[in-house]
Amino acid sequence: MSQFNRIAVIGTGLIGGSVLLAASKRKAGLSFAGWSHSKQSREHLKTFAGVEVFESAIAAVQGADLVVIATPVDRIKETLIAITPGLKAGALVTDVGSVKESVLNDASVLPNTVTFIGSHPMAGSEKAGITQAKSNLFDGKVCFITAAGKESAAGVSRLRDFWKTLGAVTSECSAKQHDAIVAITSHVPHASAAALMLAVAQSPEFTITAAGTGLRDATRIAAGEENLWVSILLANSSHVVAGLNAVEKNLVELREAIQSGNKEKVAALLKAARIARQSLDSSR
Amino acid sequence: MSQFNRIAVIGTGLIGGSVLLAASKRKAGLSFAGWSHSKQSREHLKTFAGVEVFESAIAAVQGADLVVIATPVDRIKETLIAITPGLKAGALVTDVGSVKESVLNDASVLPNTVTFIGSHPMAGSEKAGITQAKSNLFDGKVCFITAAGKESAAGVSRLRDFWKTLGAVTSECSAKQHDAIVAITSHVPHASAAALMLAVAQSPEFTITAAGTGLRDATRIAAGEENLWVSILLANSSHVVAGLNAVEKNLVELREAIQSGNKEKVAALLKAARIARQSLDSSR
Repeated sequence: MSQFNRIAVIGTGLIGGSVLLAASKRKAGLSFAGWSHSKQSREHLKTFAGVEVFESAIAAVQGADLVVIATPVDRIKETLIAITPGLKAGALVTDVGSVKESVLNDASVLPNTVTFIGSHPMAGSEKAGITQAKSNLFDGKVCFITAAGKESAAGVSRLRDFWKTLGAVTSECSAKQHDAIVAITSHVPHASAAALMLAVAQSPEFTITAAGTGLRDATRIAAGEENLWVSILLANSSHVVAGLNAVEKNLVELREAIQSGNKEKVAALLKAARIARQSLDSSR
Repeated sequence: MSQFNRIAVIGTGLIGGSVLLAASKRKAGLSFAGWSHSKQSREHLKTFAGVEVFESAIAAVQGADLVVIATPVDRIKETLIAITPGLKAGALVTDVGSVKESVLNDASVLPNTVTFIGSHPMAGSEKAGITQAKSNLFDGKVCFITAAGKESAAGVSRLRDFWKTLGAVTSECSAKQHDAIVAITSHVPHASAAALMLAVAQSPEFTITAAGTGLRDATRIAAGEENLWVSILLANSSHVVAGLNAVEKNLVELREAIQSGNKEKVAALLKAARIARQSLDSSR
């Protein structure tokens, strides 16, 4: 039996498009609705079997008992305001934004007749857009669910089951805790990779043919679409700034050890980094 | 016709082992000799068809017209001194070290009866050791050849052909130029990835299950064996320190823009990084 009668996805890029593909393939709902602000994305969405495509967000959410907001983070508030008149009483509303505390504040514009609980499936990629969407995008990926504590247990449980149906592994914590975790595991690495890429590109010695897999891997995420990331970094700035300060501190310590020829210190720092990095793989 | 009568490889880890596998498979020589300081590596080397394994470096180089030194960078000088009495007059000697100016200095210990020209195949990996060696390791990889200018054109030409036979794309420049190039394309990314990994691991908020492919890619090279990297970073310290200063500068600029909520500035920096990163892929 499907969990929901009708699922509406508002904003159909990589994540929103993949939610529709995964949810329809795995029958998480009986019917599906989608809307994108982009005409081109709406045209592409029409090729998704079983998805009704709408010209307005308010029309797309009508009758849906699950509404997934998958717009960029800095558009969530205006999107929630826009769809409010179309929302069915009792609907469960979630989002897929990479920050959760600011989105929780945004959600205060919603009426009491609906339940909002934030989600964050960690399935982004530097390859964005609906053309990159796929039904197995969430398989094995962590999806945070950040209930504020006042929601009904049934709502949280339905949302948890939804993401599990889509293949994700759910993890529950507060919005604040989520933001601190993803700052250090995702936002700070993104900003660091961008700073490294800038320094490399600015160097007069930089020779593109000498760029090996090491440099390519270390900077891969810096190829991500900047507007998406600007909103994320600014919406989570206090945690991101703290993390970047820590990166700077470690970079200065390593650079000074190299500069002074302190072999033991350089070895100790690189060893600690190696052990930490290897533990990421052994945890898989 | 094989280029060399006998090829000796001194130091048989990932690179040295792969040189033997690639050279014997592609018949770059008529016979092959190998030596490692590690008994375990010598035992593994005995499983390589057509390679004679020696108990001493001096015995391994006897009769070789090409000698490839593939020890860690900080062992090259002592290795050259050790093999000198065994070197055949007219032999071509090269190394595979990741820095070239310090190695060029080390090579001044060699007698005038042999020709030394530095090489650097950019084919390292965080997976080190002879068990990772493979005959196609150099396929399509850049191999620097850093002649000092006083070598015979025939020697440079033979070395160039050797690496091409092994599948590499050769690139010729001075040792100093090489060191500046690899500082920014390889050594600085390594140190930056290590600093990022340390900051992440030190964070009380770090949750290993939330580590996605972005963090894993950005820090992958930090899993490399530290002793190898300590010698590289210290042997190339002036170029590495300059590059790390540039990373710090960019990191501070980005962090301050985030801290002050300067959306345009953050967007401009991330956009420049995205364009630079995308150009790495379009160059492939």
